[in-house]
Amino acid sequence: MRKISLLFFLATVVSLGQTKDERQIKKIYDKALTEGLAYNWLNHLSNQIGGRLSGSVQAQQAVDYTKAQLSDLNLDRVWLQPVDVPKWVRGTPEFAYIETTPGVTSNVPICALGGSVATPLGGLKAKVVEVQGLADLEAMGEERIKGKIVFFNRPMDPRQINTFDSYSGGVDQRYSGAEEAIKYGAVGVLVRSLTLRLDDYPHTGAMSYGETPLEKRIPAAAISTNGAELLSTTLKLNPEIKFYFKQNCRQEEDVESYNVIGEITGSEHPEEIILVGGHLDSWDLGDGSHDNGAGCVQSMEVLRLFKLTGYRPKRTIRVVLFMNEENGLRGGNKYQEMALSKKENHIFALESDSGGFSPRGFTFNASDDNLEHVQSWAPLFEPYLVHFFIKGYSGADIRPLDNGVTVLAGLRTDSQRYFDHHHAETDTFEHVNKRELEFGAAAMASLVYLFDEYGIVR
Amino acid sequence: MRKISLLFFLATVVSLGQTKDERQIKKIYDKALTEGLAYNWLNHLSNQIGGRLSGSVQAQQAVDYTKAQLSDLNLDRVWLQPVDVPKWVRGTPEFAYIETTPGVTSNVPICALGGSVATPLGGLKAKVVEVQGLADLEAMGEERIKGKIVFFNRPMDPRQINTFDSYSGGVDQRYSGAEEAIKYGAVGVLVRSLTLRLDDYPHTGAMSYGETPLEKRIPAAAISTNGAELLSTTLKLNPEIKFYFKQNCRQEEDVESYNVIGEITGSEHPEEIILVGGHLDSWDLGDGSHDNGAGCVQSMEVLRLFKLTGYRPKRTIRVVLFMNEENGLRGGNKYQEMALSKKENHIFALESDSGGFSPRGFTFNASDDNLEHVQSWAPLFEPYLVHFFIKGYSGADIRPLDNGVTVLAGLRTDSQRYFDHHHAETDTFEHVNKRELEFGAAAMASLVYLFDEYGIVR
Repeated sequence: MRKISLLFFLATVVSLGQTKDERQIKKIYDKALTEGLAYNWLNHLSNQIGGRLSGSVQAQQAVDYTKAQLSDLNLDRVWLQPVDVPKWVRGTPEFAYIETTPGVTSNVPICALGGSVATPLGGLKAKVVEVQGLADLEAMGEERIKGKIVFFNRPMDPRQINTFDSYSGGVDQRYSGAEEAIKYGAVGVLVRSLTLRLDDYPHTGAMSYGETPLEKRIPAAAISTNGAELLSTTLKLNPEIKFYFKQNCRQEEDVESYNVIGEITGSEHPEEIILVGGHLDSWDLGDGSHDNGAGCVQSMEVLRLFKLTGYRPKRTIRVVLFMNEENGLRGGNKYQEMALSKKENHIFALESDSGGFSPRGFTFNASDDNLEHVQSWAPLFEPYLVHFFIKGYSGADIRPLDNGVTVLAGLRTDSQRYFDHHHAETDTFEHVNKRELEFGAAAMASLVYLFDEYGIVR
Repeated sequence: MRKISLLFFLATVVSLGQTKDERQIKKIYDKALTEGLAYNWLNHLSNQIGGRLSGSVQAQQAVDYTKAQLSDLNLDRVWLQPVDVPKWVRGTPEFAYIETTPGVTSNVPICALGGSVATPLGGLKAKVVEVQGLADLEAMGEERIKGKIVFFNRPMDPRQINTFDSYSGGVDQRYSGAEEAIKYGAVGVLVRSLTLRLDDYPHTGAMSYGETPLEKRIPAAAISTNGAELLSTTLKLNPEIKFYFKQNCRQEEDVESYNVIGEITGSEHPEEIILVGGHLDSWDLGDGSHDNGAGCVQSMEVLRLFKLTGYRPKRTIRVVLFMNEENGLRGGNKYQEMALSKKENHIFALESDSGGFSPRGFTFNASDDNLEHVQSWAPLFEPYLVHFFIKGYSGADIRPLDNGVTVLAGLRTDSQRYFDHHHAETDTFEHVNKRELEFGAAAMASLVYLFDEYGIVR
């Protein structure tokens, strides 16, 4: 009898607790869907400012704009954290063609990879050797590669359900293709664009020469998937054809830029920090709406939703808009460095960097105890269809904060359309749906609310 | 000891069983994502044929095209089921303006509602009374309505998580607005477009005059949401302004059309039919890609995926592309009538009519026993993030088959973007993502496979 009463008592407590949380989460969603500002902010970032490559005028405009917008939210503190960032400049539009016989050419869309060197002034023309990945280079050897352009053409695997897994399976070609091809005497590198679509848009992204000395570096470009298909077919018909491309990108001196930070100071545990953020920089081809204007405005909205719902957080809620995620991660590293030097105590950090698409859940980098802790909240998200709470990757900018205690998480969205836009000129505002963006902000605010209410397991 | 052995035995059987199902489902997804034809078929339906209003040339072209494509799949039977359908014709493009003072006008985008009568040849100009729904009419009474255009302006509720719920909450204005307004002497009806966006596209859709005699019918049109906002604001400033609109749509005689049907005859239980379908007709403003070209090509793909994966069904798998869902449901009713007269035994029917977006799961109209039966399969869909298996609505075309035994189901997709396109000129091919479409087809094929393997509970 006594046991039954206790069960009833516990059930009542749990149900009351859930009801309070359910109510707050409902309030958050209602406000996000009826009075949201995220979409308007993104409209400004995308259409008034545009692509925000580190070190560019647009990146600075984005710093100024988001700082001003955060200041308007009546937060307790808003500040800029200086950070030196690399400045890579694309220069004039790239140009490329396949030359089947001298004088007979087909233009194909390319773009320089971020960090690449330029071609010679008059461009670069050479025979092409197609490979399916880095491993093929060694198999082929210098004899078949020397003096040629190496064409990495392994497509993303369409059978993966999560397109980020397809991306992970292909990105080594882009990131390390040039560094590896140089070792076999290649004169240039072409990489099939990392998208599952067949279309005419080249997708840029970071690449590295590793320790290769400056004078040995070769130019690297992405080619659209349709261009890659054409080149591959043409090579099969005649392996002797040549490829021409011209790009005049360059690496300039580092410049000073900023992480943009704002916070609501906690009312009970101000020393416990909950971070929510995205990265303010983007590539330069589109306007960076999905990658990652969306994550920035959603993170700003989290703090605004607390204000709008009249929720006063117990812990300090901090929004950080990181600079230079795309080609250096200087902002994320600088933030971690400063946090360490100030002995700041981050209990939870959440990044939104998988596009402004319908959210499906969160992935957590957390101890088993904390994973169990957060998974107990998943049912609260079921009415919003955002309840995949699984172990996994958090985000590039917050990963430096990993210390084995801080819980790190990433917002996970429906990934099917992400790589249609990623790093390409198709990453633009009209491909963001207002409600999908708002759902992400609401899901993030709800999760942050729960961490604020219940903390983490130590 | 014996019990433990039995448990082990059962666990092994279950695990083997799941493994077979897991393997088949994986095969289905792999084929759908790498060798899918659904997107190509949809390209033809949308871009070579276009909007397929019942009784139109395009609807007939779609019948011919899909029948030919089904015939190419080497099914056991492909046939057309004749059905008389209504033929409503939009005529020349509609035209409308707000007249703030005589000679001072602002054009606004409108379109006739499906089934509406025309305005007089020279158009219709009258004062406007704005209402928030059908109930307002009685409150206002004939005195305030007679001789005016009734403007139904209640927006869809953005706080609903599922946008179909927002739609259900607003659609009575469109469907019954004219029938009700006539009772109070209104001369015309304007309905705020059923979309959550603020934009310039009017959304058409079916309306009914009920028993209202022909000579008493008044013209009804949808106005874009931006147009509705402008009209509402203008009315607040000056309730005496007038609205002008002109449309010359008309109802013609019924014409003969067809349901397009194909089937693979079951190898063990040919008399047990599993139906999968969508509707081939669409509205005329866009090309009907989401509503419901997507559902048609996904349904066709289900049978093709069985062929591609070498799966020979035990039961008869039948694809039905229904005609005239939008403005009459004649195809769905005719199909049920014929099935009844032939004493056909449908054990399961699945409709895809919520757009070609990322699938989230299925809703089932089924007995509790059968709901439990199908929910036991949900874990098989977890790797594909398509595992919401809940009680709910199936689909308009298959609902006539409801006899308390047949299990009915609807594919449920991410609903956030659906009403951006629904019944408007923005329902076009470029708004369908290839992979999202393919995921729907694979999810449908996987569910149909399980019903074929395990049947239903009687």
